[in-house]
Amino acid sequence: MTSRTCLSIILAAGEGTRMKSALPKVLHQIAGMPLICHVAKAVRGTGDGDIALVVGRGADEVKAAVEKVSPGVSAYEQKERLGTAHAVLAAREAIARGYDDLLIVFGDTPLIEESALILARSRLAEGFDIVVMGFRPSDPFGYGRLIETGGDLVAIREEKDASTEEKRINFCNGGLMAIRGEHALALLEAVRNDNAKGEFYLTDIVEIAHREGRRVTAIEVPVDNVIGINTRVELAEAEAIWQDRKRRAIMLAGVTMIAPETVFFSHDTLVEADALIEPNVFFGPGVHIASGAVIHAFSHLEGAHVGPRAEIGPFARLRPGADLGEKSKVGNFCEVKNATVAKGAKINHLSYIGDASVGPGANVGAGTITCNYDGYNKSRTVIGEGAFIGSNTSLVAPVSVGADAYIASGSVITEDVPDSALAFGRARQVTKEGRATVLREQYAAIKAAKKTGK
Amino acid sequence: MTSRTCLSIILAAGEGTRMKSALPKVLHQIAGMPLICHVAKAVRGTGDGDIALVVGRGADEVKAAVEKVSPGVSAYEQKERLGTAHAVLAAREAIARGYDDLLIVFGDTPLIEESALILARSRLAEGFDIVVMGFRPSDPFGYGRLIETGGDLVAIREEKDASTEEKRINFCNGGLMAIRGEHALALLEAVRNDNAKGEFYLTDIVEIAHREGRRVTAIEVPVDNVIGINTRVELAEAEAIWQDRKRRAIMLAGVTMIAPETVFFSHDTLVEADALIEPNVFFGPGVHIASGAVIHAFSHLEGAHVGPRAEIGPFARLRPGADLGEKSKVGNFCEVKNATVAKGAKINHLSYIGDASVGPGANVGAGTITCNYDGYNKSRTVIGEGAFIGSNTSLVAPVSVGADAYIASGSVITEDVPDSALAFGRARQVTKEGRATVLREQYAAIKAAKKTGK
Amino acid sequence: MTSRTCLSIILAAGEGTRMKSALPKVLHQIAGMPLICHVAKAVRGTGDGDIALVVGRGADEVKAAVEKVSPGVSAYEQKERLGTAHAVLAAREAIARGYDDLLIVFGDTPLIEESALILARSRLAEGFDIVVMGFRPSDPFGYGRLIETGGDLVAIREEKDASTEEKRINFCNGGLMAIRGEHALALLEAVRNDNAKGEFYLTDIVEIAHREGRRVTAIEVPVDNVIGINTRVELAEAEAIWQDRKRRAIMLAGVTMIAPETVFFSHDTLVEADALIEPNVFFGPGVHIASGAVIHAFSHLEGAHVGPRAEIGPFARLRPGADLGEKSKVGNFCEVKNATVAKGAKINHLSYIGDASVGPGANVGAGTITCNYDGYNKSRTVIGEGAFIGSNTSLVAPVSVGADAYIASGSVITEDVPDSALAFGRARQVTKEGRATVLREQYAAIKAAKKTGK
Repeated sequence: MTSRTCLSIILAAGEGTRMKSALPKVLHQIAGMPLICHVAKAVRGTGDGDIALVVGRGADEVKAAVEKVSPGVSAYEQKERLGTAHAVLAAREAIARGYDDLLIVFGDTPLIEESALILARSRLAEGFDIVVMGFRPSDPFGYGRLIETGGDLVAIREEKDASTEEKRINFCNGGLMAIRGEHALALLEAVRNDNAKGEFYLTDIVEIAHREGRRVTAIEVPVDNVIGINTRVELAEAEAIWQDRKRRAIMLAGVTMIAPETVFFSHDTLVEADALIEPNVFFGPGVHIASGAVIHAFSHLEGAHVGPRAEIGPFARLRPGADLGEKSKVGNFCEVKNATVAKGAKINHLSYIGDASVGPGANVGAGTITCNYDGYNKSRTVIGEGAFIGSNTSLVAPVSVGADAYIASGSVITEDVPDSALAFGRARQVTKEGRATVLREQYAAIKAAKKTGK
Repeated sequence: MTSRTCLSIILAAGEGTRMKSALPKVLHQIAGMPLICHVAKAVRGTGDGDIALVVGRGADEVKAAVEKVSPGVSAYEQKERLGTAHAVLAAREAIARGYDDLLIVFGDTPLIEESALILARSRLAEGFDIVVMGFRPSDPFGYGRLIETGGDLVAIREEKDASTEEKRINFCNGGLMAIRGEHALALLEAVRNDNAKGEFYLTDIVEIAHREGRRVTAIEVPVDNVIGINTRVELAEAEAIWQDRKRRAIMLAGVTMIAPETVFFSHDTLVEADALIEPNVFFGPGVHIASGAVIHAFSHLEGAHVGPRAEIGPFARLRPGADLGEKSKVGNFCEVKNATVAKGAKINHLSYIGDASVGPGANVGAGTITCNYDGYNKSRTVIGEGAFIGSNTSLVAPVSVGADAYIASGSVITEDVPDSALAFGRARQVTKEGRATVLREQYAAIKAAKKTGK
Repeated sequence: MTSRTCLSIILAAGEGTRMKSALPKVLHQIAGMPLICHVAKAVRGTGDGDIALVVGRGADEVKAAVEKVSPGVSAYEQKERLGTAHAVLAAREAIARGYDDLLIVFGDTPLIEESALILARSRLAEGFDIVVMGFRPSDPFGYGRLIETGGDLVAIREEKDASTEEKRINFCNGGLMAIRGEHALALLEAVRNDNAKGEFYLTDIVEIAHREGRRVTAIEVPVDNVIGINTRVELAEAEAIWQDRKRRAIMLAGVTMIAPETVFFSHDTLVEADALIEPNVFFGPGVHIASGAVIHAFSHLEGAHVGPRAEIGPFARLRPGADLGEKSKVGNFCEVKNATVAKGAKINHLSYIGDASVGPGANVGAGTITCNYDGYNKSRTVIGEGAFIGSNTSLVAPVSVGADAYIASGSVITEDVPDSALAFGRARQVTKEGRATVLREQYAAIKAAKKTGK
C-alpha cells in the first residue's frame, strides 16, 4: 500500500429503471451484500482513503448501507442527471479537500477487485495523471475503444465515431479511472457538453488531459472487474461470477466440494481446510465451518458456527446463534436457532431446538421440540451433559433437564428435571380389542353418508 | 393476427423407440406439460385456427392430452409409417375442408415459438405458396440444405445428394412448413416414393411446387425452435432451453433470482415483480407468486398462491390448494395442502397443515399436525384469528379453535375450542429422582445380554 | 478380452500437497469412491490381470481401499521420489514374474475408461512393444508432444525441448502406457537420470525402445481419460465429468431427468427404465431404483431400494436398509432407515421410521416417530398389513401393531396392539373458557417485567 492520500468517488445516482424494482439499483445484492458495499469494500481494501458517494434516488438508504461496511463516508446528491463528469463534480467539495489520488468507481460494478485498484493507483504514483481501466472483450463492438500512442492513452473513441481501423482495437474502456488529485478539478471542469445528448462525459477528460500535456495511460483489468449491472439477468450473472471466484478460492484452500456449482456462499463465509461440503448447500451471512466438518446435501446455514468434525444434514437448517461443538451432529429435518450444541451431542431427526443449550454427549430423540415461545416471551431450555431426551418430547421452556437425566418418549416436560432423574409426561395406553373394526365401519358409514348427501 | 383461416397439422405418429419408454414420445413432458401440448399452445397462439393431430401409438392418450390445452382437435391415425407427406395426408379429410393456410408442425418439436409461426403465415399472406422454416446451425453437416435462388427456395438437398458447394450452405431445413391451403392437397398428392426407402417425403413438395411455378420461400427461425426430441438426453436439453427462456423472461420482468439455473418453473408459473427466489426452488404446475414475496431456498410448490410479501421456506412444501395471505409465513419442514393461511399468520417449523384454514395473525407452533384423515374421510381444521397453537399439538379434525384461543404445547385437541378459551390435552409430568440411573443399568444389561446371546 | 496375462501398475506415491489435505490424494473421492478405486475398477474391467500398487504416504490405507474393490492386490513402497520410471521399478518384483502385458496407470487419473486400456493392450497383441496413450487438447502448450514417424512413435518431446514445428503438434502424452512384459524390465532399467532434476522419467523409454529397434506407437484416447487430479478444483472438475457420463448413460437407458445437472449419482447407482428423477436428488452408495418409480425433488438416498412405481419425496431421506415395495410412498420430511415398507404402504409426512417393518397398505400418519433407541439398544417396530397409525404417534420399540389395527392420533404406544384392535394413549382434552385471555395477560406482564428489569 501507498502512503498517498486517496478519495474514492462511488457513482451511484443512476436510475436503474431496467431493474424494475422499488429498491435502488445499488442496493440489490450479490452474495448477500448490496452491490455498492462490494465496491466500498474493494476501495477500502486499497488503503485508508475516504469515500464519497454520489447518490440520487434512495440517498439515505444507500448511505446507510455503505456505512455498515465502511463507516464515515460522505454522500453527495446529484440532483440532475447530466452525465458522468457532472456526477463526479457533485462531490466537488470532497475533491477540493486535496487528495493525492482520486478513484472513480461505480456502485453498480460490484466485481471490481482490490488488485485492479491498487495497480491503477501505482501508475499514478509512477507519474501518470490519469489511469483508465481497460478490458479486452471477446467482441469489442459497442464499447469505447482505447486509442494509444506508445504507452500513452490519447483518446477514448465511441463506436459511432471510430474509424474502421480503430474499430479493430479490442482494448476497451471499462469506465473506472484513477486521477491525480492535483489536476482533477480543473480537468473535470474543462469537460463540455457540446454533444448530441448535451451531457458532460467523464471520458472526455482523457483528450483534454492529453492536449494539456498531461500523461494518461490505460491498464488492463480482467473483464469481470468492470461488469456493470443494469437488469436482474446481469445481476444473476454477476452473482455467478462472484460465487465461482469464492468456490475456487475455497477449494484451493483445501475444502472438498462434490459439486461446487450447487453451493452458494455469502460474502463473509469462512470454511477451513479439509471440510467437506456436499451438493446443494446454501450459506447465508455469518457462517464459520471448522476443519474436518461435514456439511451434507440440502443444508441451509446462516449466522452459525460448525465445530471441528461436526456433521450436519442432509436437510439441516442452522439459524443465527447456532453454535455446534466438536463432533456434534444435527441431522435431517432439524432446525437449530440461538442454541449451543456441545461436543458430541446429537440432534439427529425432525427436531426444533431454539433458545437452548444442549450439553456434551446429550442425545436428543427424533421429533423433539423446544417450546420456546408463549406468544409473548422467548424462554430457554437447558439440557445437561449426557441427558437422553426420548423421541417426540415437548420441552416447555423455561425448563431444564439435568445431567444424565432421562426423558421418556412422547413426554411433555413442563418442570425442571434433576440430574439422573427419570421424567415422563404421557398418558397410559388403552387397547380395545376388535374396536378398530367397529371404528372403520363408522368412518365408512360417514363417508357413505357424505356421498349420499351430495 | 390475420383473418385467414388456418389448419395446423401436428405430426405425432413417430414410434419414439429411442426414448425407451412405455409412454408415447409426444407425451413426455417439459415444464410439466407434454411435448405436444407445447406445440398445440404455440399454434393456438397464432390465431383461432383448427388443429389436426396425426397419431400412431397411444392415439387416445395423445388426443386427450392435447384436448386439455386446446379443446376441439381432430385426430387422424396414420396406420403405416410411409413418410412425412404420407403422414400429413392422413389428415386429408381436414385439409379438404379448405383452409387459407396450413401449418405443418411436429409433436416432438416443443420449443417452436408463436413468433416463428406467425412470421411463416405472414409470408403466405404476402403471396408465397410454401414457407419452409430454416435455421442456421453452427455445423450444417447432416442437415438438408436450403437451396435458394434470389428470395425463392428451389429445393431442399439432403447431405448425401449435396454438391461440395451446396454442402457449404449453412441454412438448413427445420422441417416445419406453412402451405397455402388452396394447392396443398394437389402438392402433397404429387409426392412420389421412388427413393431408397420407398417413403413419401414432405420436403419433396418444395421442388414440385417450384417446378409448377409456385412461389416457395424459407424463413430463418432460431435454432432452438426446430429442435426435435428423440432421446431422454435431448428431452433434458430441451427442458434446459425452455427453463432458460422462462428464467430470463421472469428476471427481466423484475424478479430477483440468486442462482436462476437452480430454479425450475412449470409451464404456467406466474411470478410478480420484486419477488425474490433463492437457489433451489421447484415450481410444479399452478403456482402464483405475488409481488414482494420471498421464496427461500429448497422450496417445492405446486398449485399454490403466495400472497404479497409472504415468506416461505427454506424447506417448505406448498401443495395444491395452499393459499397464503399477505405477509404470512410458512417455514422450514412445513407442508401446507388445501389450506388458507390468512394475512400475517405464521407456521414456522415442522408442521403439517392440511384441509385447514388458519386465521389472520394466528401462530402455529413447531411440530403442529392437523390430523385430517381417519382412513376414510378428510376433515377440516379451522383456526381462528389470533389463535395460538402451542408446539407439538395434534388437531384432530373436524375441529375448530376459536379466535384468540390458546392451545397448550403437546396437546391432542379433539373437541372445538371456543373463542378466547384455553385448552390442553396432555398428561401431567411425573419425575422420579435417581431413576434414570436404574433405567440405564437395565438397558445396559439388556445390551450385554444380547451380546452374550450371540 | 485377451488371454494374455497382464500386470497393472498403479502409481500412487505422489505427495499431493496441492490438495492441502491430511488424506492421501488418491483416497479423495469422486462418485463416493476413492480415485484409485476408479482406476482399479477400470483395469479390472479389462480382464483378470493382477494389480500392483506403488504407494508412498498412507500405504496401508491406500491398499485397504483398493482391496475393497479388487481383492488380492500387492503394494510396493516407493521410498524416495526419483521419477516415474523409478516408481514403476518399485514394483520390480511383480514385473519380474513375467506377464505378457504391463499397464502403467496413475492413481490420480480416475476417469480412464476400460475401452482405452483394452485398445492399448490390443496394440500390444498386434506386435507393438510400447503403446502410449495420447490425447488432443484444444491447446497443446505445456504438454509433452508425441513425435511420430509413420505409425511409429519415436519420441515424447517436452515443451521446453520442442522445436517450433514440433510445438505445432497437438497430439500429446497422456502419461499412461502399455508395455510388452518381455522387455519391460530391461527398458525401465535403461532409463538414466542425467537431466536437470536428476529424475528417472518413464517417458524416456519411448526413445530407448525406438533406438533398440522396438516398435512403439501411440493411441488416441478422449481427453478426459487422462485428466490428473492435483487440486480440489480439479477434483470437482473430474467429479463433474464422471457425473455427466453417468447421467447420459442413465438417460439413454430410458430414465427421465428434468434437470440432469442437478442429480448426483454414486459409483454404483442403478436406475431402471421409465423411472423419473426430478431436480436436486443425491444418491449415496448402494441405491437401486426400479422401473416406474418417481423420485421427487430434494431427495437424498443411500443404501436403499425403491420398488416399481414407488414414489418418494420431495424432501425424503432414505438411509441404508430402506427397502420400499411396489407402489409404496415416502413423502416430505420423512426419514426411513433399516426398514421395509411393503407394497402400497404410505408414510407421507414428517415421520421417522427406523428399524421397522411396515405392512402392505398400512397408512402411517403425519409426524409418526418410531422410538427405536433407548440410549443402549436399537429395537424394532412392526406395523401389520392395513394398519392405520394416527398422526403424531410415538411407537416405543420394541412394539408391534397388528394387522388392521387402528392407533388414535397423538398416542404414545408402548405395548403391542393386537390385530383389529383400537389403541390410544393420550390425555383427555380440558377446555377452560375465557382462560386464554387471563393467560395472555400473565405472559404480557412477564414480558413487561423483563423489560423493566433491564
